Amino acid sequence: MILIHTPNPKEVAAYLDLFRRALPQHDFISLEQLVQPDAVQYVITWGAPPQLFATLPNVRAVFALGAGVDKLLTRDDLAAEVPIYRLLDGGMAAQMAEYVRYGVLSYQRHMDVYRRQQAAGEWKMLAPKRPAQVRVGVLGLGEIGSAVAQTLAADGYTVSGWSRSAKNVAAITCHHGADGLAALLADSDVLACVLPSTPDTQGLLNGERLAALPRGAMLINAGRGDLLDEAALLALLDSGHLRCAQLDVFASEPLPHSHALWAHPGVTVTPHIAAITLRDEAVSQIAANLVRLAQGEEGAGRVVRGRGY
Amino acid sequence: MILIHTPNPKEVAAYLDLFRRALPQHDFISLEQLVQPDAVQYVITWGAPPQLFATLPNVRAVFALGAGVDKLLTRDDLAAEVPIYRLLDGGMAAQMAEYVRYGVLSYQRHMDVYRRQQAAGEWKMLAPKRPAQVRVGVLGLGEIGSAVAQTLAADGYTVSGWSRSAKNVAAITCHHGADGLAALLADSDVLACVLPSTPDTQGLLNGERLAALPRGAMLINAGRGDLLDEAALLALLDSGHLRCAQLDVFASEPLPHSHALWAHPGVTVTPHIAAITLRDEAVSQIAANLVRLAQGEEGAGRVVRGRGY
Repeated sequence: MILIHTPNPKEVAAYLDLFRRALPQHDFISLEQLVQPDAVQYVITWGAPPQLFATLPNVRAVFALGAGVDKLLTRDDLAAEVPIYRLLDGGMAAQMAEYVRYGVLSYQRHMDVYRRQQAAGEWKMLAPKRPAQVRVGVLGLGEIGSAVAQTLAADGYTVSGWSRSAKNVAAITCHHGADGLAALLADSDVLACVLPSTPDTQGLLNGERLAALPRGAMLINAGRGDLLDEAALLALLDSGHLRCAQLDVFASEPLPHSHALWAHPGVTVTPHIAAITLRDEAVSQIAANLVRLAQGEEGAGRVVRGRGY
Repeated sequence: MILIHTPNPKEVAAYLDLFRRALPQHDFISLEQLVQPDAVQYVITWGAPPQLFATLPNVRAVFALGAGVDKLLTRDDLAAEVPIYRLLDGGMAAQMAEYVRYGVLSYQRHMDVYRRQQAAGEWKMLAPKRPAQVRVGVLGLGEIGSAVAQTLAADGYTVSGWSRSAKNVAAITCHHGADGLAALLADSDVLACVLPSTPDTQGLLNGERLAALPRGAMLINAGRGDLLDEAALLALLDSGHLRCAQLDVFASEPLPHSHALWAHPGVTVTPHIAAITLRDEAVSQIAANLVRLAQGEEGAGRVVRGRGY
């Protein structure tokens, strides 16, 4: 028996329908339909309620309906030996590339400045910049980060990337480790972060590192909110060291009503929409994994707990 | 002797320097250096003052420092038999493709809606759209329009194009003529206009044609301001028939301070920067044309007066 749960009942209904059609031989149920908790072998979920797993003694694996699994890894009701599988891409790399491209294009073409000029009724051309004149640093070079970096390189931007361990991505200058991060920051007109939240990355974008960006730089954060010191970002925007920011993730979500980021003229706030799981893609990946597990094979996208993804 | 003139003295100085280096055998001068008006054979210009050509009796050709030549064609001091050459591309197609891509991406990813939500402090996800679900209609399929349409098609959008006469552009559904325009309008979630101003195109984007767009559509105008009925656009935005607009060109430029477009929440105003002539590219094209004319050959980009470009 396979339990499907997300906080949105309409979404659960849609997933039930898609999974039942994809794998008619399996028995998919919603939380409302659950009468035999010990019969649940697999859970497909996003935002599962607290202690859900404590009521399911025989879960063999959990499939996350997303790429980021930080919330699943810090639960105290899920035994460490239960394998967690995350979505690999799931249509998210392309969406993330679009989201970052929008920010970089906005920076290159001065659209943020023109928006402020428009608010002031000011008609003033700024000297055009070619894409190659804009240096973009991408933090994170997994499936998503590599796709982002390569999309931007194909657009003509000068792209570098950074990851925890050494990587090689075609057309991208790749850095890694602490020294690599310092080198990347110093050379990034736009810093685009798509890192997951792990013990290693939390707090990475602190005031010191943001101040290491060139004057007039832009920050795009589409990774996780707990990577960024929001107060330090606001201070650097106000001092003029940073020109603007495009933020999709926040320390607290939804972003609280009173938060200064909402009203800052240099900040674009989006409600965690940079990369939304596309249902058909999620279903096909998880269904393929269920088939692999049933055949005694290893599934794709198994999370390494110590690494955080 | 070759006269170089634009309204910006710094720009004239830069062009003088570049042209003298490109063609040292020719004699380039500014308007301030002009003492022998009858010795001027060629004029390289953008925004030449009224009656300038009336003082230059021996001009053999005029080179526009731009792609749009509508202002040159309607002057009464320039004899119809003097050939006018316009820039072919000049780095402008790539810029225009970026400008239109920014607008289409903004529409696809609901960035205009999220901007309004941000102003209201509202955190609300909207259902994601894939590029293929957004139908873009490009008005104009010359060098610039074709490049715009092909860039968008490569991004995954569903792209159609329209031109006065029948054309064929790879990966684009091509329409032409009055019936073709009606078909394109009915099927365009985003209408992107890069047409020149000609007697045929002036007033093309009137209220009736804008109302023929699907409900919730977007208009991008990066062609010429006199193509668009600005009052009709405002009325359709206010009625909710159109969702938003990104405008780079206006009936009167600079856009007058009191104009309602400046403050409309659904309108992005940019100060005629979608495609700015890149100096090095302009110099290399015009220098090549000067060499061709000196050898008795025809130059590239000669304007057909009756056609308007």
